[in-house]
Amino acid sequence: MLNLAQKIRAALGEDPVDILLKNAMLVNVLSGEIHEADIAIKDDIVIGLGDYQAKQTLDLKGKFVCPGLIDGHLHLESSMLSIPEFAANVVPQGTIAVVADPHEIANVMGAEGIKHILRTSENCPLKVYIMFPSCVPATPFETSGATLGPKDMLEFRDEPRILGLAEMMNYPGVLFQDQEVLDKIEAFEGKPRDGHAPGLSGKQLCAYIAAGIGSDHECSTLEEAREKLRLGMKIMIREGSAARNLDSLLPLVNSENSRNCFFVTDDLEPDDILSRGHIIALLRKAVAKGVNPIRAVQMASVNTAQYFGLRNMGAVASGYKADLMVVDDLKDFTVRQVFSSGELVAENGKMVVSSSSVGSVEPIRSFNVNWEKTQDISVSGNGAKINVIGVIPGQIITTNLVEAPKTVDGVITSDTERDILKIVVIERHNGTGSNGVAFIKGFGLKRGAIGGSVAHDSHNIIVIGVTDEDIILAAHEIDKMGGGMVAVDNGKLTAKLPLPIAGLMSDKPISEVQANLQKLNAAAKELGCPLDSPFSTMSFMALTPIPELKLTDLGLFDSLNFKFTSLFAAM
Amino acid sequence: MLNLAQKIRAALGEDPVDILLKNAMLVNVLSGEIHEADIAIKDDIVIGLGDYQAKQTLDLKGKFVCPGLIDGHLHLESSMLSIPEFAANVVPQGTIAVVADPHEIANVMGAEGIKHILRTSENCPLKVYIMFPSCVPATPFETSGATLGPKDMLEFRDEPRILGLAEMMNYPGVLFQDQEVLDKIEAFEGKPRDGHAPGLSGKQLCAYIAAGIGSDHECSTLEEAREKLRLGMKIMIREGSAARNLDSLLPLVNSENSRNCFFVTDDLEPDDILSRGHIIALLRKAVAKGVNPIRAVQMASVNTAQYFGLRNMGAVASGYKADLMVVDDLKDFTVRQVFSSGELVAENGKMVVSSSSVGSVEPIRSFNVNWEKTQDISVSGNGAKINVIGVIPGQIITTNLVEAPKTVDGVITSDTERDILKIVVIERHNGTGSNGVAFIKGFGLKRGAIGGSVAHDSHNIIVIGVTDEDIILAAHEIDKMGGGMVAVDNGKLTAKLPLPIAGLMSDKPISEVQANLQKLNAAAKELGCPLDSPFSTMSFMALTPIPELKLTDLGLFDSLNFKFTSLFAAM
Repeated sequence: MLNLAQKIRAALGEDPVDILLKNAMLVNVLSGEIHEADIAIKDDIVIGLGDYQAKQTLDLKGKFVCPGLIDGHLHLESSMLSIPEFAANVVPQGTIAVVADPHEIANVMGAEGIKHILRTSENCPLKVYIMFPSCVPATPFETSGATLGPKDMLEFRDEPRILGLAEMMNYPGVLFQDQEVLDKIEAFEGKPRDGHAPGLSGKQLCAYIAAGIGSDHECSTLEEAREKLRLGMKIMIREGSAARNLDSLLPLVNSENSRNCFFVTDDLEPDDILSRGHIIALLRKAVAKGVNPIRAVQMASVNTAQYFGLRNMGAVASGYKADLMVVDDLKDFTVRQVFSSGELVAENGKMVVSSSSVGSVEPIRSFNVNWEKTQDISVSGNGAKINVIGVIPGQIITTNLVEAPKTVDGVITSDTERDILKIVVIERHNGTGSNGVAFIKGFGLKRGAIGGSVAHDSHNIIVIGVTDEDIILAAHEIDKMGGGMVAVDNGKLTAKLPLPIAGLMSDKPISEVQANLQKLNAAAKELGCPLDSPFSTMSFMALTPIPELKLTDLGLFDSLNFKFTSLFAAM
Repeated sequence: MLNLAQKIRAALGEDPVDILLKNAMLVNVLSGEIHEADIAIKDDIVIGLGDYQAKQTLDLKGKFVCPGLIDGHLHLESSMLSIPEFAANVVPQGTIAVVADPHEIANVMGAEGIKHILRTSENCPLKVYIMFPSCVPATPFETSGATLGPKDMLEFRDEPRILGLAEMMNYPGVLFQDQEVLDKIEAFEGKPRDGHAPGLSGKQLCAYIAAGIGSDHECSTLEEAREKLRLGMKIMIREGSAARNLDSLLPLVNSENSRNCFFVTDDLEPDDILSRGHIIALLRKAVAKGVNPIRAVQMASVNTAQYFGLRNMGAVASGYKADLMVVDDLKDFTVRQVFSSGELVAENGKMVVSSSSVGSVEPIRSFNVNWEKTQDISVSGNGAKINVIGVIPGQIITTNLVEAPKTVDGVITSDTERDILKIVVIERHNGTGSNGVAFIKGFGLKRGAIGGSVAHDSHNIIVIGVTDEDIILAAHEIDKMGGGMVAVDNGKLTAKLPLPIAGLMSDKPISEVQANLQKLNAAAKELGCPLDSPFSTMSFMALTPIPELKLTDLGLFDSLNFKFTSLFAAM
């Protein structure tokens, strides 16, 4: 890092700069213009615009330069990639920073998980900033690997890369003035505190905002976003693998409010990273839909930086971090070069530097299953009807079906004819031996089982299958790998994706992750599953905040009435 | 102040709010719309928009509500008013906050002056924020009342109302990497650091910005402002009593950059406060010139708040300070009501609460003149030509004239026939007895003398007159009043404006200040002075950074070559 005197001397031209990007067309997000510029870089910053003596000169021949792109909200774990692998795939697309909520790894490993993300993203060409997870555990209705309270937050508050409080999903807690929730909000007083409040409006929304929540990424309609914007929230326009709101929200953006809107992905699966692209996908789509390219670039860079208080980021100007991308045009935004902190890090879609940090792809063992208490997952029946989780293909909400169980010798079994399968959630963090058993309709397996250690939000082992033997085998295989996803067929492992980093992320390249995912999906199909993304759908079957019926290691949960319920339906 | 739980309960409607402004047309600077709203206020904040139960309801009948106005850069001392009197005159115009650089009082009293401003503006309906003066003394070429170095800055850095470093006028010091200047900049690392760099461009400008300077209020041409904006500066668009740049700079503002521009006044004299108006004058003028009213209001409120890191200010939204004005229309912006921190403070142009704080109008004695050493202000001449300060009416720059002196018995005297008058600057802070004597052309006095204790930047006593007797009398009268401005005529005081607060500000109402100023101007005219604002012009005759020839207590100064020069012209 240059000291002040060095910056001044370089800017004056007294010392040579490192790199001069000559003949650029600069998308200047500060002056709101596109203009010719020679961009001088020294060390990690843009030192000035002008004709400078440089150690290295690149003639851009009129190519466009935009600030590097920033994702304002995502869960890195959703990519199932290690940080260097994620970086290696998004940096060549022009992403130079993400603001991550490490909610998943924190639910597994607590503060250690956050430290892991911080440590393994040091010196990464992708700048990884953290919003401190606000809801660990997400609810008291499942066993998580850790609990993070207001005191933990105070400990992390002054960490430079921890920018604020991550999405406060517990908006009922805010509205009920739950003291611990309020303490968490106050722990990050003066810093950004992100929201998560789908559909909240009127006085409840006013209360949520007055409490200090400054953003929302859950708007799905124009009206919802308009109300939130009017009341003072920043609107994160989201296009991820699951939720995509850009079409709905873009009409909100006008000349006088665009500064309060920016792009996020929330969750992005490996396939989408490769096929659609990261933040650049939103940029392209916005421009294709008629947004002025300068304004679109602002929503992918400087607006985000300003909300998060990332001074001297998000623009290409004197003293700003030299994070930028060179693109052929402002329509397809074909990325030629990416500079991160003044260093050329990617060219023509490939990294030209390593993105690996010390320990960043080392497995982190996070399994502690009490197998002794988990041998028997049988359920006795007395003929009474049972509550069954009803899957809606492509959605994370479920229905609560009431069905007559198939019973053999007083034991309720999967019924492949009516597609009623056993689902099991096995506690994997603390060796408690607690496990939940229930039934689910919609996965269509005719034999075998599928399972995984990605199960929002506590990420216990979740398995759906036909026989108890295959279910237990699947769970064991997951444990053996230190986490991951499996398919088993009649006593045999037929496909697997190891996720040895906390049971959430792979230590392998994206190509291998994708290949394994394809094999898993094919194996599930082979077992009879009609769903497009069975493993992704399964991972939401333990997510209690989302209605209507879910299963955790502590039992079947009625997410409409927010309480545990019985396997057996009320008469 | 409400705690979090109280805010939430009020926003939910569980507790009644204090005030409901019903049927407002809200100029929403966040959503970029004008929309109907009922605005609920509790304690000092806007708690929400909606139909709330309130202790007091005001039906606005479709009147417009704008956020209260903010002046992003001014010197309060220029108004010559005490803080409560300044507030009482600008708050009814919708101004609810100023970011002041107390440069003048700091040059007189140092840190004590800054503390005085902080103390006497506590609990004022006008929120007074401070940028810490960067150049005390402004130059080493005169004797100031105090010196403020980087260590003083560190002491004040965490004071909540001190927002950053005030205009770094010493840009040569920045460019020369003067260590003390760099230390001052670093003392406010992470906070706004204002610039002052008229005409600076190219690599020098890059260097100034790369050093951390984030704004400029000295742009006088569109090209200058555009270059500064492109390189990363916020552009303060200034309309004060002296410099007025709005006409030149408004064409700069577009949809994608307006957020980086905002309104300031810099210096505003009593007459202009009353006749033209404070920030509202810029708002009216911008709208008259075709700027979208929402955008114009943003430049007078939220843009300023965001640059200075004033969270939850500058807009009317949940959790924001309830600082707002009710106006009849968005053209004349006729102000009906002004609310500051939730309290109705002004109505129909008049304050309805007191703006006085403890001690705010008490005189502060700041005079320590060594009269013994200051009795004799005669100058011997040997017939050689002398350097004479040439006044340019209405400007603060001067010329360096070379004239033959009028000499009587070997002593150089004023020559009323050729309008060459004696000018004297008498050190008044430390009793050093140093005084500068020279001659000036352009004030046109035929007899008597005029003088004052406002003399930028060190504010020593400055007097221009015909006879030594009247000059010394004027200086004595200024000392006696504890500061102010006087006119004397042949041994008699003919007009005066006492400025007993540090020799800079009055303890009286604006009407009295204005009346006295008018009398002073009339008295100067009576003595033969043709200038419109002789006292204002005189106050810049000691300002060494402005060319061409100036006089300080330490002698005649060549501001072109930045060094002292001799009274006697080189042959």
